[in-house]
Amino acid sequence: MATVEELKLRIRELENELIKCKQHRSQEDLQNPVFRPKIEKMSAEVVDSNPYSRLMALKRMGIVEDYEKIRSFAVAVVGVGGVGSVTAEMLTRCGIGKLLLFDYDKVELANMNRLFFQPHQAGLSKVEAAEHTLRSINPDVIFETHNYNITTVDNFTHFMDRISNGGLQEGKSVDLVLSCVDNFEARMAINTACNELGQTWMESGVSENAVSGHIQLLIPGETACFACAPPLVVAANIDEKTLKRDGVCAASLPTTMGVIAGILVQNVLKYLLGFGTVSFYLGYNAMQDFFPTMTMKANPQCDDRHCRRQQEEYKKKEAERPKPEVVEEEEEVVVHEENVWGIELVSEITAVELQDASGPKPDLPEGITVAYTIPNKDVEVNSGETVEETDQSLEELMAQMKKL
Amino acid sequence: MATVEELKLRIRELENELIKCKQHRSQEDLQNPVFRPKIEKMSAEVVDSNPYSRLMALKRMGIVEDYEKIRSFAVAVVGVGGVGSVTAEMLTRCGIGKLLLFDYDKVELANMNRLFFQPHQAGLSKVEAAEHTLRSINPDVIFETHNYNITTVDNFTHFMDRISNGGLQEGKSVDLVLSCVDNFEARMAINTACNELGQTWMESGVSENAVSGHIQLLIPGETACFACAPPLVVAANIDEKTLKRDGVCAASLPTTMGVIAGILVQNVLKYLLGFGTVSFYLGYNAMQDFFPTMTMKANPQCDDRHCRRQQEEYKKKEAERPKPEVVEEEEEVVVHEENVWGIELVSEITAVELQDASGPKPDLPEGITVAYTIPNKDVEVNSGETVEETDQSLEELMAQMKKL
Repeated sequence: MATVEELKLRIRELENELIKCKQHRSQEDLQNPVFRPKIEKMSAEVVDSNPYSRLMALKRMGIVEDYEKIRSFAVAVVGVGGVGSVTAEMLTRCGIGKLLLFDYDKVELANMNRLFFQPHQAGLSKVEAAEHTLRSINPDVIFETHNYNITTVDNFTHFMDRISNGGLQEGKSVDLVLSCVDNFEARMAINTACNELGQTWMESGVSENAVSGHIQLLIPGETACFACAPPLVVAANIDEKTLKRDGVCAASLPTTMGVIAGILVQNVLKYLLGFGTVSFYLGYNAMQDFFPTMTMKANPQCDDRHCRRQQEEYKKKEAERPKPEVVEEEEEVVVHEENVWGIELVSEITAVELQDASGPKPDLPEGITVAYTIPNKDVEVNSGETVEETDQSLEELMAQMKKL
Repeated sequence: MATVEELKLRIRELENELIKCKQHRSQEDLQNPVFRPKIEKMSAEVVDSNPYSRLMALKRMGIVEDYEKIRSFAVAVVGVGGVGSVTAEMLTRCGIGKLLLFDYDKVELANMNRLFFQPHQAGLSKVEAAEHTLRSINPDVIFETHNYNITTVDNFTHFMDRISNGGLQEGKSVDLVLSCVDNFEARMAINTACNELGQTWMESGVSENAVSGHIQLLIPGETACFACAPPLVVAANIDEKTLKRDGVCAASLPTTMGVIAGILVQNVLKYLLGFGTVSFYLGYNAMQDFFPTMTMKANPQCDDRHCRRQQEEYKKKEAERPKPEVVEEEEEVVVHEENVWGIELVSEITAVELQDASGPKPDLPEGITVAYTIPNKDVEVNSGETVEETDQSLEELMAQMKKL
């Protein structure tokens, strides 16, 4: 049996061990994120502790009229990869009202060549890891995450529902949907949903050789939808053979993806807050530092019946709208500012021209080629309520196109 | 005196407390960053656990010949703010050999509207916080940080020494210096150092209204230095009055800064790894999505004597170089690829033209204006060994210019 002395010794040992453990804990606490408190009202006060001072300064600089309005918007980001994660972070830091994130992928070490995710997050779902980081950056933003693939029938129905009802006030639709996905099928699903709902959205994409990309604004009925015309990318002077992947692993760069996320969110801010010229299409070719812009009108023969319906409604609205007087027209110019330099690169290409051109050799401006062509009838995505499921990958679709 | 029973009770209490403390610790460990192990050799293997697979794929895609070479380069980043921090993160994720970071600022909540830093880092020095994050992202990179202002005499001497000797192998110079600072004085200090050392560097800048920026490549003796000609920014169609700050707080956006960091690091990768066309000057105007490019030759009347000396040496080398035969010339085209589209926006402006134009109304292409003008003689920076200290801010310099 233990003596009193032995028991006292044991007590001293335990006390020392407990002190060490607690010291260790407090050191770890220092390294752990300390969430900043929520901020009730955006302030322009210039103090080091104000995370919104540099954004509110946009008002004083005459760039944005009402920056606080940013808090009234809900934006859905579909795909939280190289472009989507940075897009979500930029919107979070800008103080967007609500973010809805959709992705079914897990963080891997193979993602570490792009911004945002960190090695210790490997294995977590992308939406879960993203929400954790974003919430610690800005707790004022409302986050809603969905860890699923939007292209399956059930998930697509749920996705449609969240676009329609997941706005800042439940029951209202989101203000904008951003496509940051990396495959044809998911883009087509977003296109189908947005056409049916009349939801304005923006597309983004990066080429598989990592050195070009684009963003595009799609307004159902007004501009070309994803089924009206294939999106374009600048193919540089690179031999087309180098663009074909061997089905193994596409290249990616944090630079190209950062630029695409940057111009995407810039376009979102311009669209939501009403400043500058909102781009309908902006390409980025990293090899030559070339940035083409263009606009594409909707295709009256589009395969998507909801797109055709939206076009009819848009036409009706346009016809009913009283012809604006000169004064009113000038007011409009403030929102969609005209390019008065005459040095911007703009090509006007109709969707019909592109549709016609989806054969072997499209008649496009030199340096620009079609990135994705419209799939043939066998694999065509149903333009109805849900998306037709297909196991075919983009490569398989491309291969089929080649055979035609 | 305590009885044996009381002592035993105390032991049980302590044991329970210790178990709780250790449980708490292990939970915290789960949330703490787990550093990935170092990777001896870059591999192209396509597995989820390989952080370099998507970068090594650039070889298979025919974009980069020898991607592994990235590990042999040391890059200095001066200024770890909105542009510099993202620049450092991109280079870290790309697997650069060594990064040298220079900044004297502390992280503040007011920085949270730009990418990279997080609220829990508020109060830490920017270089310390950056190194901690970057090391956990990629432990293969060697980091060297300097928490000081490079423009003071002692620090400037030390800065020059680290540019000359801080390469991947101690005693060799760094491969590139990147200026990501936000003021005229620091830019001039980097310019002075690089001219004296014949060190190639790249400049970056973002306007105070947050909606335009630029990057520039400076090769001493070959292209215009910072003292040869003021750097240009695209001033958009914005009234110049909106560009003047009231000395309170400049605006900034994560989008513009992300784009500038993206095109800067893209230019660095193209320069170091030899692909695509390296841009001498690339501007970004967010209001109109306009991206002007141009080249500027060195000014033989430059105030910096080291610039004039480098120009003489460059002229001598050029004269001594045997005139390349047609075959060799074609080989050169591969490295500095020619723009065969004829649709890129390039303005050839000589430094002399700009020098002449630093008066009230520069004769520049429409849409482009001078961002910084050359300061008058009173505040001119000494082109000698060290930088002359001045308390004058950019605004004060601008105000003086206006009075002339």
